[in-house]
Amino acid sequence: MRKPIITLLTDFGIKDPYVASMKGVILNINPQCTLIDITHHVNPHDIQEGAFLLAKTYSYFPKGTIHLAVVDPGVGGARKPILLVTQNYLFVGPDNGLFTLVAKRERVKQVIDLTNKKYFLPQISTTFHGRDIFAPVAAYLSLGIPPSNFGEKLDHRVKLNLKEPVLRGKKLFGEIVLIDHFGNLISNIDQPRFTNFAKCYPFVIRIGEKAISNIKKGYWEGKKQETIALFGSGEFLEISINEGNAQRVLKVKKGEPITIII
Amino acid sequence: MRKPIITLLTDFGIKDPYVASMKGVILNINPQCTLIDITHHVNPHDIQEGAFLLAKTYSYFPKGTIHLAVVDPGVGGARKPILLVTQNYLFVGPDNGLFTLVAKRERVKQVIDLTNKKYFLPQISTTFHGRDIFAPVAAYLSLGIPPSNFGEKLDHRVKLNLKEPVLRGKKLFGEIVLIDHFGNLISNIDQPRFTNFAKCYPFVIRIGEKAISNIKKGYWEGKKQETIALFGSGEFLEISINEGNAQRVLKVKKGEPITIII
Amino acid sequence: MRKPIITLLTDFGIKDPYVASMKGVILNINPQCTLIDITHHVNPHDIQEGAFLLAKTYSYFPKGTIHLAVVDPGVGGARKPILLVTQNYLFVGPDNGLFTLVAKRERVKQVIDLTNKKYFLPQISTTFHGRDIFAPVAAYLSLGIPPSNFGEKLDHRVKLNLKEPVLRGKKLFGEIVLIDHFGNLISNIDQPRFTNFAKCYPFVIRIGEKAISNIKKGYWEGKKQETIALFGSGEFLEISINEGNAQRVLKVKKGEPITIII
Repeated sequence: MRKPIITLLTDFGIKDPYVASMKGVILNINPQCTLIDITHHVNPHDIQEGAFLLAKTYSYFPKGTIHLAVVDPGVGGARKPILLVTQNYLFVGPDNGLFTLVAKRERVKQVIDLTNKKYFLPQISTTFHGRDIFAPVAAYLSLGIPPSNFGEKLDHRVKLNLKEPVLRGKKLFGEIVLIDHFGNLISNIDQPRFTNFAKCYPFVIRIGEKAISNIKKGYWEGKKQETIALFGSGEFLEISINEGNAQRVLKVKKGEPITIII
Repeated sequence: MRKPIITLLTDFGIKDPYVASMKGVILNINPQCTLIDITHHVNPHDIQEGAFLLAKTYSYFPKGTIHLAVVDPGVGGARKPILLVTQNYLFVGPDNGLFTLVAKRERVKQVIDLTNKKYFLPQISTTFHGRDIFAPVAAYLSLGIPPSNFGEKLDHRVKLNLKEPVLRGKKLFGEIVLIDHFGNLISNIDQPRFTNFAKCYPFVIRIGEKAISNIKKGYWEGKKQETIALFGSGEFLEISINEGNAQRVLKVKKGEPITIII
Repeated sequence: MRKPIITLLTDFGIKDPYVASMKGVILNINPQCTLIDITHHVNPHDIQEGAFLLAKTYSYFPKGTIHLAVVDPGVGGARKPILLVTQNYLFVGPDNGLFTLVAKRERVKQVIDLTNKKYFLPQISTTFHGRDIFAPVAAYLSLGIPPSNFGEKLDHRVKLNLKEPVLRGKKLFGEIVLIDHFGNLISNIDQPRFTNFAKCYPFVIRIGEKAISNIKKGYWEGKKQETIALFGSGEFLEISINEGNAQRVLKVKKGEPITIII
């Protein structure tokens, strides 16, 4: 049998030992797991960013991987803990919209309301369900316990209202949704949507004061310090500076409008 | 047999490859180990913070786990390298008080002065015993080498003078000992001590200019941006702002007094 | 058989899920790998720093370890993806000089130009060869695929012009090449070179306004806050402040000159 893999995505940071507690709980139940960090640096409480980063990454893992995701500002309150079973993966976390994007890309087979306390830690805090509920559930799943043992099926999930690009006449209005470690500005305009809109017409991409009128194939096509546009590794339109930092140079924040004009 | 687990807690940070060198040394001796990071972001040289974070976390791991902890400002000097054997775990690191808190919670069976050079790297630097002594000792322990092989028993250990809350009449004086990634202010007042002191009397919690007169069950009970008090996942009294950052709003540092008045 | 080990060194940081994507790709091909992070905090695009950190660390890992290193400002352009086979290790990454230092220390058996697309992801982006080429190649290597299957032999490799210390009469001119998490200032002057130069003569080490005239054996020999010189765990001359931060106190940056005068 393949060694089970559990990934972890949280907004806990890595200074505190919160993530390590979750890993201890998992290894206590199933010491054979391979544990892989996706990121623990989702902006605190930013469910949308968590949803986006998870959707960018989950599908690179082997089928059957258990993805444990905890960005959970409502911990201990009314929001439900859930298990999302898709054709290829298992997702464990809070029902607050964190799985909105993966559920768009994967065929969802069922959603389980996690209620069976047999699979929780004996004592459940009101502030750390990552350790007390989600980690043990993921660990028991990795032992092969069937999803239906963890609780009843749910008909509804909470879904995020994600900002989609807006088309008005000859303009496509998007925004910067993520800024990476290199300062690359990643927009919510994906390649199919761009191509469908711009077709073969000449176009201008406007962000702040900058206007860019072509798409590069890679960073290396830019001259040093030139501001360029390209489709990044996640297939979204990205503004970048070759061997530079577009965020610092253009002084752009998340939410900055980006407009394509034909 | 269960795969042996070694955890690592240091103040080395993760930019430099110091932690990776330790992991390389361990895997060279026992490639079957599972290696788990607790944290590498203990404040540099802050033995008390290291002791606190280790005590918060070690018990979530399976019995038999080897906890390797290196916050070691006296490296290469007179302080001894030790192995602490408790009923449930093995702890490896410098004898500078780092294990003060775990030794209060675990039944200590023996303390070994690590002197047997057979289990060290062949060359021992004066600046990096994490790599040259502690990592190989942890790796050999994970192979099942008995503790007594590593050196003689010690009768004394260095102990930290930890700041405990002080009771004076109708006031309990504590302090903030840890501030987490979310800006939650964690005090040294634990739930049993609080309950024993406050019983059913009305009380006020004072921190800086703020006065709080009740305890919430979870973050979600606070209104957005409200300053609340609650017992966090480690069972210590914690000051928090729902979906906000108490550290930034209250401008509080580690060591800030917190007082309970009945 | 030993479990194969793959290490990862990049300039990707850990906020973004780039490293996790690479790990997912590897585990998809070989779920039995042990994955160890060396660092992901190489300064963005700083090939020389990457080369230095890799050279400091690779040899602590078991023979046969596959070292995957990606500091790759020219990704998608003309630079070749390569596999460097040495007597003890396998190195996978871009041919941009990143392996200059390890190739000086290891006996290089062959260099392979990675051209066989059978061992790449089916779709290759122009911006993320770490995920699309280097990760799958490392994973297939860990399954035992022989190096020659991945492409043709190369006669030339790109080599960095590394700044070496310069000797002029009674002065040895070096520079600070790395500053670690503790603020220790690490120079490019190694112990053999220093000893060969200074022999038994009295000497002065000059950095900024400071003059130091002896070498300590360890940090503990310095008084609190004293600026000292010593040979660190990597055997390079290092300027340090006992329980302090030399970078902050001396206000020194990478590239700062350090001079030994006899």
